[in-house]
Amino acid sequence: MARHHFVPTSYSNVIGTLPPVLEIASGDSVVTTTLDAAGFGGDGKQHAPRGNPMTGPFFVTGAEPGDALHVTIERMTTNRETGWTYSPLAPGVLDPAILGEMQKRERYEWAIDAKAGTVKLLEPSARIKDWSFPLAPMLGCFGVAPERKQAISTATSGAHGGNMDYRLFGPGATIAFPVFEPGALFFLGDGHACQGDGEIAGTGVETSFEVEFSVKLVKQAGLRWPRCETATDLLVIAAGRPLDQPLQFATTEMLRWVGEALGVDVVEASHLLGQAVRYDIANVFNPAYCVAARLEKTELTKAMSIVGKA
Amino acid sequence: MARHHFVPTSYSNVIGTLPPVLEIASGDSVVTTTLDAAGFGGDGKQHAPRGNPMTGPFFVTGAEPGDALHVTIERMTTNRETGWTYSPLAPGVLDPAILGEMQKRERYEWAIDAKAGTVKLLEPSARIKDWSFPLAPMLGCFGVAPERKQAISTATSGAHGGNMDYRLFGPGATIAFPVFEPGALFFLGDGHACQGDGEIAGTGVETSFEVEFSVKLVKQAGLRWPRCETATDLLVIAAGRPLDQPLQFATTEMLRWVGEALGVDVVEASHLLGQAVRYDIANVFNPAYCVAARLEKTELTKAMSIVGKA
Amino acid sequence: MARHHFVPTSYSNVIGTLPPVLEIASGDSVVTTTLDAAGFGGDGKQHAPRGNPMTGPFFVTGAEPGDALHVTIERMTTNRETGWTYSPLAPGVLDPAILGEMQKRERYEWAIDAKAGTVKLLEPSARIKDWSFPLAPMLGCFGVAPERKQAISTATSGAHGGNMDYRLFGPGATIAFPVFEPGALFFLGDGHACQGDGEIAGTGVETSFEVEFSVKLVKQAGLRWPRCETATDLLVIAAGRPLDQPLQFATTEMLRWVGEALGVDVVEASHLLGQAVRYDIANVFNPAYCVAARLEKTELTKAMSIVGKA
Amino acid sequence: MARHHFVPTSYSNVIGTLPPVLEIASGDSVVTTTLDAAGFGGDGKQHAPRGNPMTGPFFVTGAEPGDALHVTIERMTTNRETGWTYSPLAPGVLDPAILGEMQKRERYEWAIDAKAGTVKLLEPSARIKDWSFPLAPMLGCFGVAPERKQAISTATSGAHGGNMDYRLFGPGATIAFPVFEPGALFFLGDGHACQGDGEIAGTGVETSFEVEFSVKLVKQAGLRWPRCETATDLLVIAAGRPLDQPLQFATTEMLRWVGEALGVDVVEASHLLGQAVRYDIANVFNPAYCVAARLEKTELTKAMSIVGKA
Repeated sequence: MARHHFVPTSYSNVIGTLPPVLEIASGDSVVTTTLDAAGFGGDGKQHAPRGNPMTGPFFVTGAEPGDALHVTIERMTTNRETGWTYSPLAPGVLDPAILGEMQKRERYEWAIDAKAGTVKLLEPSARIKDWSFPLAPMLGCFGVAPERKQAISTATSGAHGGNMDYRLFGPGATIAFPVFEPGALFFLGDGHACQGDGEIAGTGVETSFEVEFSVKLVKQAGLRWPRCETATDLLVIAAGRPLDQPLQFATTEMLRWVGEALGVDVVEASHLLGQAVRYDIANVFNPAYCVAARLEKTELTKAMSIVGKA
Repeated sequence: MARHHFVPTSYSNVIGTLPPVLEIASGDSVVTTTLDAAGFGGDGKQHAPRGNPMTGPFFVTGAEPGDALHVTIERMTTNRETGWTYSPLAPGVLDPAILGEMQKRERYEWAIDAKAGTVKLLEPSARIKDWSFPLAPMLGCFGVAPERKQAISTATSGAHGGNMDYRLFGPGATIAFPVFEPGALFFLGDGHACQGDGEIAGTGVETSFEVEFSVKLVKQAGLRWPRCETATDLLVIAAGRPLDQPLQFATTEMLRWVGEALGVDVVEASHLLGQAVRYDIANVFNPAYCVAARLEKTELTKAMSIVGKA
Repeated sequence: MARHHFVPTSYSNVIGTLPPVLEIASGDSVVTTTLDAAGFGGDGKQHAPRGNPMTGPFFVTGAEPGDALHVTIERMTTNRETGWTYSPLAPGVLDPAILGEMQKRERYEWAIDAKAGTVKLLEPSARIKDWSFPLAPMLGCFGVAPERKQAISTATSGAHGGNMDYRLFGPGATIAFPVFEPGALFFLGDGHACQGDGEIAGTGVETSFEVEFSVKLVKQAGLRWPRCETATDLLVIAAGRPLDQPLQFATTEMLRWVGEALGVDVVEASHLLGQAVRYDIANVFNPAYCVAARLEKTELTKAMSIVGKA
Repeated sequence: MARHHFVPTSYSNVIGTLPPVLEIASGDSVVTTTLDAAGFGGDGKQHAPRGNPMTGPFFVTGAEPGDALHVTIERMTTNRETGWTYSPLAPGVLDPAILGEMQKRERYEWAIDAKAGTVKLLEPSARIKDWSFPLAPMLGCFGVAPERKQAISTATSGAHGGNMDYRLFGPGATIAFPVFEPGALFFLGDGHACQGDGEIAGTGVETSFEVEFSVKLVKQAGLRWPRCETATDLLVIAAGRPLDQPLQFATTEMLRWVGEALGVDVVEASHLLGQAVRYDIANVFNPAYCVAARLEKTELTKAMSIVGKA
């Protein structure tokens, strides 16, 4: 149950079977830092090329293909006072018929006030000078080495995680990844100070963080997509295009999870999902869109809990 | 401000420019009943062919193309003690690769306990005998006559409303429809006792209701898709396929709404949506899928309120 | 086997159960005229509102739901010397990322030379002054009254036909429509002097025509989507969104057709389609996209022929 | 202009920046062999794990990011007498509603008769015993190392090529790939003895080949997607999901190609594509679907030719 402090000196713009930066054990936690999506750190300097450079990978002792790596985001502390977004909205989330009238997308700077817990435009126009959004940190891109020795761009996502850009992946969330390679090889980065559903600006408020995470290994878990437990919810996230596809994948994996954890058949699991499922559109901007199928934590879904398992 | 009691004697399986069953004025309310999706009423008898038979249309005095018809769902009272669903989940929401192993979809009966506020399977197996879902009534299909003298099946939806199957369209919600024909011609039906996101079972808990609704006319509103205000949220709902398309339409219309109501430009409206938008997948079962773009009601979005307008 | 000459005096912008303009018998042919997509006829005048106004409907004696109406396009003769298109390409067929740089779509006039069999821009720039395309007439929008008393806009398409905009629907093609209403109620219009795959300009070269068509009734045919036979091919066309969906529908109906006509099972029919199917993207512009699944007419597919059947 | 004979001893199931197996020069040709999709060679033995194992990569002297690598498939000779397919059709190409009734997909063996130029089932049932398809060899999966040091599974495709499964990629075709890494790093494999549009069985007739290809380097070509010239056509192929997306990418790149090669603006290029484009659905089975935008080689498109360029 060691607590490692890791200062990254190199970063990767792909998630794959790369040489590990640190070996850790199930139960350990790591305090480290992440760059923003453009490669800038807490010192305001660029340390890696743009496109979600990752800290890592961390090799988890004993992790084997078929296992699950449970990662708990223990803490995310912004380590600088600014972030940035693009505006107007990304072309893919708007009616194609109006795109001819949209102005060019440009970068905007934001002020992050960790004490006040707010995020505000640095130079708002008079009419929106009072606009303020709650600071709600999340990891945009993190995951494990994918199957078949692939090295996948951190622009996109898959069963291994990656650039999911889901606003519920913040402090307190435990995410279970299927392990495809020995050691799992966990990467993380691309933190957002806040973000709406869908990452429809093509960004959250992009900034750098000090992140503390802990890992647990669950042997032979048989996951097909990442699962997650938060304080209030249980969810599966999946990736693909169009949005129909990650919804199909996430629903199918949730049906498996419900069936296995609650000991029910497909008809019974369907009764539950049909009346109780919630869907979140995590991102509708990246090459692979992400959808989460989510169930509230209630007495009924109690047996689905993954926190504390190992 | 009359309160009409209307007992339907005929129903329609299309929404179009049909002879009105009653003329009402802006400000009036109507107490009436709706059949379930298969045409069965509170007496347990079938009164119309299956496929969301509609009560109506109600002609609203003075409504003209370009206006908005604001419909408030004042009350939905189940008028029988059972409902039904299908299970397992609809094929379109599952990974196509597993559909070969899925059993045939069959109908299941549910007990609705209005006093207890619960919905339960009538004959659950032992292992799920304690499962219970909160009664949360909603209108699956309602709307106004579409443009160009079309008559559109109540299986599907569009800018005129129709079979949107959105769980937030319950008591307390005010829905603003664009008016395409004189009198607007409002239809309603297809109530659900409860339903998860996406209507992924292909049904909610389908049943018949006594419904009370009121209408207000807003002249020259220029809506392109239905808008809605609930106790907590402001939202646009749109229809299309794949899910990407209604998301594009709803986002585009929400951008217009924010711009007009808050007096901001596209860049500023994008800042708001980018950090604060929520998406709900209303249905992912019908010929046209529906997605809602939603904003929480806060001080910031106060000027967007539509309730009480006329 | 009468040959009717019908001069239309009214047009419809929906396809539905409307009063017939003429009753005809199986085996009859009709010579009539069609307006262009904007409602303009051979006299250069507008006779109906824009949006594919239809000639018809023609009531076919004895046609009942479940039958097939076989329509052969015997001849299409342009009845004026100009047509029009839009340019640049429709936003939906381009990468959304470049749409911000595209100029506004505008209308362009074309010269149709029926004798030379060519279509050319009326006022080409010097560098494209020699561009010429072969005259290849086709009906963009035609079909029969849809099921359930719907009246469907001629902007879109479905199992009843409608705005399919498929370049193979020209002289010599026999199209079999499923019949949903007594008399079938056949409509036609929206002729193009030529058009590429997908109708990606949002138009073909739109113009008015004199059209001769003949009809045959096939009892109890059980079609789910329109089928067609040309001089060289057999095909099913289907409609939906995204393109994946009409491809699924057309492939499924083609699998049925192969199975029934050749007396083979699904595995055997799959061997044929897997090695020999061709897909055409008919339109990727209208609210419903259309895809054709096509097989070449060979000794192997001979038993699938529909021409001459009644 | 050397002609290399290369006997592979290792294979790769990803396409990425791997150590080259041979360095060749622009103008050179290579005679080598490819395994089938399951890793079996001309000797009937498995030499690599299933999933389109690749021969290569070949390092092309002087190739730099931004260049184009032109690969001409000079010859494909089957080096065994059998191939295999799956049947029935893949679930993704059928109406989801019928998948519950479909039998399990199974493997079928085919006889390849290179002399007769035919492909036939090895053990057909009596009723299809005369079915025969023309031998029409094609490379299913080939391409160059993708950008950003990614290593991408040979199950899928992208701007770098990969598993495009397009039936026009056979002998005589010249395919121009954008170069992303020094040396280009060309891989090839996954040959099919024949295949319909869309690879809807999830396979062509999968078999091993002796392949001869030649390469030419074109400096600073600025391609965004692979282009191709055959004896009769010029085309762009692109990848994505749903089918709408590769169609958008291929149309956009074709618009660039037309504009640059013919010296016309976007409006003029749109006139050409609107009236003359053809679309082929290359595959609708792999994780990324592929669509080709194609123009016939005529006097008008002559300046677009890429063959012989260097």
